[in-house]
Amino acid sequence: MTAQLLNGKEIAKDYRAGLQAEVEKLKENGMTPNLTVVIVGDDGASLSYVRSKNKAAEKIGMTSDIVHLDGDTSEADLLAEIERLNNDEKVHGILVQVPLPKQISEDKVLEAIAPEKDVDGFSPVNIGRLYTGQRTFKPCTPLGIMELLKHTGSLEGKTVAVIGRSHIVGQPVAKLLTNENATVTLMHSRTKNMVDQLKNFDVVVSAVGKPGLITGDDLKEGAIVIDVGNTVVDGKLVGDVDFESAEKVASWITPVPGGVGPLTITMVLNNTLLAAKWNNGLE
Amino acid sequence: MTAQLLNGKEIAKDYRAGLQAEVEKLKENGMTPNLTVVIVGDDGASLSYVRSKNKAAEKIGMTSDIVHLDGDTSEADLLAEIERLNNDEKVHGILVQVPLPKQISEDKVLEAIAPEKDVDGFSPVNIGRLYTGQRTFKPCTPLGIMELLKHTGSLEGKTVAVIGRSHIVGQPVAKLLTNENATVTLMHSRTKNMVDQLKNFDVVVSAVGKPGLITGDDLKEGAIVIDVGNTVVDGKLVGDVDFESAEKVASWITPVPGGVGPLTITMVLNNTLLAAKWNNGLE
Repeated sequence: MTAQLLNGKEIAKDYRAGLQAEVEKLKENGMTPNLTVVIVGDDGASLSYVRSKNKAAEKIGMTSDIVHLDGDTSEADLLAEIERLNNDEKVHGILVQVPLPKQISEDKVLEAIAPEKDVDGFSPVNIGRLYTGQRTFKPCTPLGIMELLKHTGSLEGKTVAVIGRSHIVGQPVAKLLTNENATVTLMHSRTKNMVDQLKNFDVVVSAVGKPGLITGDDLKEGAIVIDVGNTVVDGKLVGDVDFESAEKVASWITPVPGGVGPLTITMVLNNTLLAAKWNNGLE
Repeated sequence: MTAQLLNGKEIAKDYRAGLQAEVEKLKENGMTPNLTVVIVGDDGASLSYVRSKNKAAEKIGMTSDIVHLDGDTSEADLLAEIERLNNDEKVHGILVQVPLPKQISEDKVLEAIAPEKDVDGFSPVNIGRLYTGQRTFKPCTPLGIMELLKHTGSLEGKTVAVIGRSHIVGQPVAKLLTNENATVTLMHSRTKNMVDQLKNFDVVVSAVGKPGLITGDDLKEGAIVIDVGNTVVDGKLVGDVDFESAEKVASWITPVPGGVGPLTITMVLNNTLLAAKWNNGLE
């Protein structure tokens, strides 16, 4: 078997075209969705990530602002800035780029973003709503993974190994998979003989950050493989899965780069559109 | 093998003795923990459950009040009552007995309880804090299950099947087990060949409500079995597990009744004590 490619770039492109059409409709009715991204300090990787979100939003017709604060901004000043954005009716989605400088509590800042503008879905109240099945912004990487998996068919009754228990990826994607009636095993660094067990699973989602962790020999014939790992090795982005051997065994597989990555930013845009609609009583 | 009994009654008794000692210390310093339980309507089972929480709190030296509202109370009136309790400094823990009458949104009411008094741990912000690893009130039945499991040794590296994906039991106990470095598989009604797979697990936590779902034949030799099922059959409370056959295979097993049940109320008291301490800047 040679796996079919889950081409994140292509899937994201189609998805964004759908979002763009919806943005245009909203604009005809006088409302322009706005995404505002807050960044504190001058970390190069963070800045480039913020700019790419900004560009992506503008490309589909949204407005997007960057609030760039000095690296020595106090927690109180950042909280005041967030309060201002919470109260600004033109702002629909607020992202705060992490990590934040040491003098600022990330937990406090995430709790300060108005839940109805928290398009990352990282504020506790939105995470809680995810687990109680209420309407909320689902976190973007897990949502992107689910969009990729839609292209492989129904998840009902499938067994899924999710590797990595972070609250950004592993935990919430386990929840979204369970919602789709998959049976999920959440694995992590303390799981015994982890890789040896993967042969029992229909789907493997790896979000670890260890290049070469999983090879084709570890997979069930026909498995679906979602590689969320992104580690820079010799200047190149690589995932957790040895693509060359895995694609010979899997039925579907994501490349790195060009797999999950493009979907994550797409889902930021998706959530910003939802925020604009919900905050205006649409849907 | 004949399993050792995880005697919830005994374990709860010891645990409550520890709580009582702490309550006495607080009282010497002029602070008496208070648990206030709100009930709407006259459902017999709910009333008896509320009274048992009330009694249990008083028995360990706390004060406990019952706010009993008419079955036709409006949502606005209930929300006003909760607001009053949120602002009453003498009240440390607030429980609202569910289910609520049809005219009242449970989601709205749970969100209205001040997070620092939500000793059930059901408000979205507290659920969110559970998943992000912040300080919070952990939900009582999952916490009780973890207390029982402590008596069986370390969970590190163990495989656990949690059956049932509710946000009251299955989901949060899966999270607490993962925190203890167990590897958890969350099973549910759509899991294929569920019972046949249980032989692969070191620990089985069943929270379904189907008497006889699991028998000894389904279990791994030496498994630890936590039965959260409680179904009334011919006037008797029964769990999901056929105790007689299971105790011949398991290493540890909870009875029903007298297993998880007594621990749930104990953890309500535990959380009320924590609320009293935290709200007064202790710990």
